Amino acid sequence: MMRNFKITPLSSNSRVNRSSHEVVLVTGQLINIPIKHLIDSSVEWVELKVRGELRVKQANLSVLLSEKVLISPKDLADSLIVQGNTYSEELDDRSLTINLLDKQQNLIVSYGLYFTVLRICLDVDADRDGVVEENNPNKGNWKQGKDGYGAILLVNSDRDRPEAHEEDYHLKGLLEIKDCSLMVVRKVGPKRLPSQYDLRVWVSEENAPYLRIFDQLETNYGHELVGHGHQQGNLIKQDITKDIFLAVEGLHYRDIDFDGIIFINLSLVKDNEILYTDRVRFQVAPWIMTPHTLSPQTVYIARIASGSNYKMIEQMRFVVGASKAQLEVVSSIRYRNDRWMQDEIEFGYSESPGHFMYVVLNSPRDRGLDEFPEEELLGIDVGHITRKNPEATTLDSFGNLEVSPPVTVDGVDYPFGRILFGGNHSDAPEYSTRMVKNIRDFLYAQKIQPPIELFCDWLEVGHIDEFMTFVPTKTAKGFKLILTSPNKYYEIIQALKEQHQTELTQRTRIGDMSITDLLSNQELLQDNQRFQRYIDWNRDILKQKLGLREDDIIDIPGLFQGAGHQKRAETFFPNMVNMLVLDNHLAIPKPFGPKINEECQIEACVKNLLEPFGCTCYFIDNWEPYFLGRGEIHCGTNTRRKPFQTKWWEIASDLTEHQQPNNY
Amino acid sequence: MMRNFKITPLSSNSRVNRSSHEVVLVTGQLINIPIKHLIDSSVEWVELKVRGELRVKQANLSVLLSEKVLISPKDLADSLIVQGNTYSEELDDRSLTINLLDKQQNLIVSYGLYFTVLRICLDVDADRDGVVEENNPNKGNWKQGKDGYGAILLVNSDRDRPEAHEEDYHLKGLLEIKDCSLMVVRKVGPKRLPSQYDLRVWVSEENAPYLRIFDQLETNYGHELVGHGHQQGNLIKQDITKDIFLAVEGLHYRDIDFDGIIFINLSLVKDNEILYTDRVRFQVAPWIMTPHTLSPQTVYIARIASGSNYKMIEQMRFVVGASKAQLEVVSSIRYRNDRWMQDEIEFGYSESPGHFMYVVLNSPRDRGLDEFPEEELLGIDVGHITRKNPEATTLDSFGNLEVSPPVTVDGVDYPFGRILFGGNHSDAPEYSTRMVKNIRDFLYAQKIQPPIELFCDWLEVGHIDEFMTFVPTKTAKGFKLILTSPNKYYEIIQALKEQHQTELTQRTRIGDMSITDLLSNQELLQDNQRFQRYIDWNRDILKQKLGLREDDIIDIPGLFQGAGHQKRAETFFPNMVNMLVLDNHLAIPKPFGPKINEECQIEACVKNLLEPFGCTCYFIDNWEPYFLGRGEIHCGTNTRRKPFQTKWWEIASDLTEHQQPNNY
Repeated sequence: MMRNFKITPLSSNSRVNRSSHEVVLVTGQLINIPIKHLIDSSVEWVELKVRGELRVKQANLSVLLSEKVLISPKDLADSLIVQGNTYSEELDDRSLTINLLDKQQNLIVSYGLYFTVLRICLDVDADRDGVVEENNPNKGNWKQGKDGYGAILLVNSDRDRPEAHEEDYHLKGLLEIKDCSLMVVRKVGPKRLPSQYDLRVWVSEENAPYLRIFDQLETNYGHELVGHGHQQGNLIKQDITKDIFLAVEGLHYRDIDFDGIIFINLSLVKDNEILYTDRVRFQVAPWIMTPHTLSPQTVYIARIASGSNYKMIEQMRFVVGASKAQLEVVSSIRYRNDRWMQDEIEFGYSESPGHFMYVVLNSPRDRGLDEFPEEELLGIDVGHITRKNPEATTLDSFGNLEVSPPVTVDGVDYPFGRILFGGNHSDAPEYSTRMVKNIRDFLYAQKIQPPIELFCDWLEVGHIDEFMTFVPTKTAKGFKLILTSPNKYYEIIQALKEQHQTELTQRTRIGDMSITDLLSNQELLQDNQRFQRYIDWNRDILKQKLGLREDDIIDIPGLFQGAGHQKRAETFFPNMVNMLVLDNHLAIPKPFGPKINEECQIEACVKNLLEPFGCTCYFIDNWEPYFLGRGEIHCGTNTRRKPFQTKWWEIASDLTEHQQPNNY
Repeated sequence: MMRNFKITPLSSNSRVNRSSHEVVLVTGQLINIPIKHLIDSSVEWVELKVRGELRVKQANLSVLLSEKVLISPKDLADSLIVQGNTYSEELDDRSLTINLLDKQQNLIVSYGLYFTVLRICLDVDADRDGVVEENNPNKGNWKQGKDGYGAILLVNSDRDRPEAHEEDYHLKGLLEIKDCSLMVVRKVGPKRLPSQYDLRVWVSEENAPYLRIFDQLETNYGHELVGHGHQQGNLIKQDITKDIFLAVEGLHYRDIDFDGIIFINLSLVKDNEILYTDRVRFQVAPWIMTPHTLSPQTVYIARIASGSNYKMIEQMRFVVGASKAQLEVVSSIRYRNDRWMQDEIEFGYSESPGHFMYVVLNSPRDRGLDEFPEEELLGIDVGHITRKNPEATTLDSFGNLEVSPPVTVDGVDYPFGRILFGGNHSDAPEYSTRMVKNIRDFLYAQKIQPPIELFCDWLEVGHIDEFMTFVPTKTAKGFKLILTSPNKYYEIIQALKEQHQTELTQRTRIGDMSITDLLSNQELLQDNQRFQRYIDWNRDILKQKLGLREDDIIDIPGLFQGAGHQKRAETFFPNMVNMLVLDNHLAIPKPFGPKINEECQIEACVKNLLEPFGCTCYFIDNWEPYFLGRGEIHCGTNTRRKPFQTKWWEIASDLTEHQQPNNY
């Protein structure tokens, strides 16, 4: 970055034959000073004199702290290049004198240039150890990986003090600063700036809505330098003799219109003209979902006012306690008796070096529990994001939003897994509902868990957790995909028929049915064959997009019935795949299947399938409070899980190359 | 940790045949309830009933949420063991009923036990990623290494706001919390604690002086829970329905009477009796010195009021600028014209995951510059330690305190090098001064850079920087040890004599001397042979203790004279080993040696020795301002350097096994 400084020529006939100029340099910056225009035919010698730490170059000659370098005009380059590497102690503490001499070396004209050298250096934690280092050469760039660089900004979406509200112009409460990234303006140099000069911190108009910057952190409140529509602020001039600490607060997660990249500039400004800029880059941390294979910390369940889930809650406490987690019981009275804890929110987290917060994504479903996350979850290190949408359908409830465990697909690692949500499928155009665009946009924009859209609109409720889940297993891959399978159910009852157990009964939504009744119901069979086909389509997508083989999948029995005008699928008896996975403890909806010697044959089948992989199955009666309301245990709970140990900025690929699908 | 709860027996003849007891459990804790004493001969059956998440064990029987378990008294174990794993939603929300029945199963006596289960969980950043995780099983322990664990506490020795003073009972200024380690008290359970119960945070009487703990961090000031002589504080009872954040502030570095290990306890207390304790461990971060081989950030030099070092400062700016560091010129007028910047302070740093501060150790020398670090260095992320001692001698100036680059000695890694300071030597008992004990104690107590005591009392000034330094080189080891060598000097002038250059002169403390003069001075020769022997003793110690070979050492010419009663060594001409090392740029005292063709033969020798290793030598005239005052460039400067990239808690050994020497 070469700057120019033009010396105003004096006539050698002028009565004033001395001229002085003040020049402000930035450490390391080269400044170009044209001098040819100063020379006329009377000049036989040009004398250069340097005082203080300046490097003056002209043609092949370097002048440093030297006296009387004499040059013939014919050896003179067009310009002098001047550079200073250390900041000034006082204003104008360095100088370059250009004396134009005649043949007898008498002075014709003398030009004195007085230099003030300033350091313009803005620092961040570019090496990602949680500490701001000094002038990292990569502070303006980004490289993914363990040997990568580039600073990271958390969105300060939590609430660190009870009365916090968005219109604050200060950082209030000691804990607020913990969620900010720090920047340091290094000592600039002399005690004060030259007059007319300012130090300005600024961001582009595009970046301005996405952050705030605070100075005066030595106070208890700080001062908002950038924010609330202001994209720039000048630092107080007296503060420049020490390092100045600034706090940066992220305001927005990545989304379709914001790639999370923020540049912050520190400029030397003269009369509103920017003379020099040091620039740092931040990447806003993504929102990361936690798959079922991560250990639970807290399970949330609503207590139904009628008391219908009282006994179930007590049973759930045992399963949750066995997995060393806590059960948090939420009174649903204040939330219009909404029991569908899974549907209103999705727990995730956001992380930067040395900073962490859980972040709840609030779905646009906006039923009874809509206020629950703000009222009971939002707090210190628990943030909250909301994406409203008046066109939201049942597909926008977060039973329809899951994430796979980490997978590798065709050599591409997805160390945080891939987000899964349900929509439509081109082979069944009659079912055309999709998740609303602003939620899909948000999910795709996080990049780190590239989403996969499954087919769920064939389901009456329309959530992917009605046909799939993941269970951790002590196998090489570490998990199995569990799919609901009508075929598997028919296999079991067919086998029972062959054992002449046709009088055994299954409890169903329409009452107890014998094996004979079930097998003779052609409509039920045909509907379930169709539903099986839809599940198989999803099976194919999941196999392909998650790199799964057949033996990574376990089919567990389940049965639907066609409901309504479009014959969408509704569970026919409690849908076991809608289980709550707490490490190897599985809270599974009790299926009330045919019993031989008091043993439910459906439960026995599931235990047979899952327990060899180290799982413990707890079959819990959720018939009245959940099944009859068209959901099960998973729909009725939500789980805050441990974050991944892997840091998203340390993975080899940032997955930003991942293309959104064509039908996006 | 098994607790006991004794049920008061009721006589079966009592008119009141029901009794209720309230019991407080901690999640996961086993409680032992003796029951044999309740049974008399009239009892034929014991009925147990459980409500809520409790595990009740007796002999081979486990009772969970079950109705009417009937046991014959002869099958009854002495005690019931009761455990709850999840916290209570309400007080007394779980129960165990023990009904004693007669032969006809009629009730004789009923004992109802009502349980409240509380979580007592205190969390720290035990996995050292800068973030407090949940219930790390290693939070009470310490393991060194990349796969290690154990929380770390920084000593908050910096000054984050101008008016800060030690008697504050609050955390003032947003930046203060950045220097604290956070702890989290996890949600305890029900909305309030049972009456008579408290949650207490406490430390031992021994640990109390070394830390403070603050709660109410959602305010702008926090509240001192532990500190100022108070070793315990109770948490506010209403706050227990959410996680409570606490800040821990370290007050003291490791020293002879403090190993840096702090335990903090969270206890459930009833009527001042501790019922259960969760405990975390902190290790106070050591103070770490930075060897000459680390890159410079800022070089400090005093401006002498007379102006005698004006030109030298300007020259120094070029060297400092070439190494991309800054030169900070300190006005010595306010410091009684004390120019010996090296002697008053030692720059080091202290670090924990996500926290860092430079920390200046202030020597007990306490001459003019004594107030300089407090007045001009202390600030945000620049801390200050002082160790006073009225018995301090010149050996307690920090020209006598250095640190080696990282070395490996006999298979033991010292990744932060070893501290070096000078004292006496048993073979020269006439020189018996040592560094004062409280400084030595402090240095040994840091452990991470196990000190080596060299012999320096043979020097009039008595600092190890008069005979040694380290220079970074582009070699496998990465550095060379540079030693002053009278022998080397004599070699050069002997060679000059052999070239018949006996009239050439060396400028010395006593005036210009010819080669002939120098070679004919027998007293000078004998003194220097003695000094060479002392240097050789140090060479042997350094070779042994730093694992150096002869080719790791470069001898550069130097000369001393015997001074005073005890004929201690005083430099005879500027002592080049007292150079300032700024990466490969070396600011070396100009030796004013014999010249051939305008080339100083001493400078030529040093360039020959050092420049092949990639160093650039700048010979700077420090004769008047420093040499005549019995010091040189290194004595007159101090350098804040980049910290090690290695984290002290990640190295394989914590070096705590290192024994202090016998003569310690």
